[in-house]
Amino acid sequence: MRTILLKIAYDGSGFSGWQRQPNARTVCGTVEDALSELIGREMRIDGTSRTDAGVHALGQCASFRLEDGGIPTGRIPAALNALLARDRLEGIGDVRILSADEMPEGFHARYSSRGKRYVYRIFNSPDKSVFRRRLFYQVGEELDLEAMRSAAALLVGEHDFGAFMSSGGTPQESTVREIYSIRIEEDRAFAEAPAPFDAGRTAHGEETESFAPRSVAIAVEGGGFLYNMVRIIVGTLVEVGLGKRDPESVSLALSSRLRKDAGHTAPPQGLYLDEVFY
Amino acid sequence: MRTILLKIAYDGSGFSGWQRQPNARTVCGTVEDALSELIGREMRIDGTSRTDAGVHALGQCASFRLEDGGIPTGRIPAALNALLARDRLEGIGDVRILSADEMPEGFHARYSSRGKRYVYRIFNSPDKSVFRRRLFYQVGEELDLEAMRSAAALLVGEHDFGAFMSSGGTPQESTVREIYSIRIEEDRAFAEAPAPFDAGRTAHGEETESFAPRSVAIAVEGGGFLYNMVRIIVGTLVEVGLGKRDPESVSLALSSRLRKDAGHTAPPQGLYLDEVFY
Repeated sequence: MRTILLKIAYDGSGFSGWQRQPNARTVCGTVEDALSELIGREMRIDGTSRTDAGVHALGQCASFRLEDGGIPTGRIPAALNALLARDRLEGIGDVRILSADEMPEGFHARYSSRGKRYVYRIFNSPDKSVFRRRLFYQVGEELDLEAMRSAAALLVGEHDFGAFMSSGGTPQESTVREIYSIRIEEDRAFAEAPAPFDAGRTAHGEETESFAPRSVAIAVEGGGFLYNMVRIIVGTLVEVGLGKRDPESVSLALSSRLRKDAGHTAPPQGLYLDEVFY
Repeated sequence: MRTILLKIAYDGSGFSGWQRQPNARTVCGTVEDALSELIGREMRIDGTSRTDAGVHALGQCASFRLEDGGIPTGRIPAALNALLARDRLEGIGDVRILSADEMPEGFHARYSSRGKRYVYRIFNSPDKSVFRRRLFYQVGEELDLEAMRSAAALLVGEHDFGAFMSSGGTPQESTVREIYSIRIEEDRAFAEAPAPFDAGRTAHGEETESFAPRSVAIAVEGGGFLYNMVRIIVGTLVEVGLGKRDPESVSLALSSRLRKDAGHTAPPQGLYLDEVFY
């Protein structure tokens, strides 16, 4: 038997999340159906992270076992992608298999993981864009990134993140988790989404902009995460960035462990599972 | 009575095109329904361009007449956008009213137009992206932009574009049209769509790239366009850029007026109605 690890990218906007459900299009179900068709029998895969509806991935991982013989491991991505792209826009599916690798016996995509990096993408611009809504959290007032970095520094390390968890996830025995790092970077180039061709060259009506559009990426690495933890961290950091709360207020939330002391849950469409560490 | 001109942006990926149809979500129908709700009676608008399913707009225009009194013209965009965003992702609709202006009596969004600019966006990268599929035509081999510019130059001016028209549009008395200009520009910054956070810093498995990803924008300005004319021009230019046909071959298509002598019809999701000229 082979133990195979798939690395998977997806645009989450067309899926009801990762986890297989009856009567809903899910990422796991879509990949399992393609794999079952490829192998010729019912297949199930174990994913690393049960991403919510609307959440994206650049490096989701999933493992499964397969007998020797049959399709070579290296040919699985192209074969699956052909099935996943069938009938999809321009022959590109909204889920793509990036790689397939053979792992040691006993390897499991979730249990063998040492941690994960999520990236949360904000489009920080005075103008909201119809083209950004599926892939970014659009924040219309200028964010103070230095204040956000000060608050983020207080969250790094091992803490009880009970205040940064939504109800509705798997019940947790402990809400202590370790965050390895939080990096906040801006990228003005990335903000250049579809805009009028001559914008900037000719006068346009909408040039009452109070600050330059940019994208802000918040990369959070940690050993494990509670339900909605990254989105609540980001919602809290955004409130800090907008001056609605002090950076130090996150320490209060860590010590009280009360959900009400943390910020809002940032929307799913800005969240990307970026990489899983093994 | 006021004659009002709306400027409209939309992400076409969730619409069955501009033109109102029963039992389909269309841009025109969506805007008309919101306007009817705002004004309190059935409203109809005249759009400049009947964009196809999947085609986007940064500057679609539409006009309608409205009695004096009632909502001031300047407040129409915000009022319509609130209705258009209701129940949509993060309170941002996939269609947005950018401006509303009062025009002289007798003005009509389509008949008063002096011309239009369409922009066609290509994601030219060895790797296809799940995040680019709704907004770009993804071409996986490197395009020769100089060859494309040579071919494009032959199309500028007044010509019979009979070879660059799909059947299925409104029957045309004449297939002579004038193209004012075709500009082809690349933008490497714009190609930086969601990618792994540390890509370029750490070694990744997918770094067998044969050329640097970029976006290519083809801006076509003209007095009027036949059905699918811009998409067939782009399909032809892409074939030139891939070395599948000579730049000079477009002259043959212009003189033969036969559809088979032009290239393929580029897919709708790369096309943007950029600006209407009055």
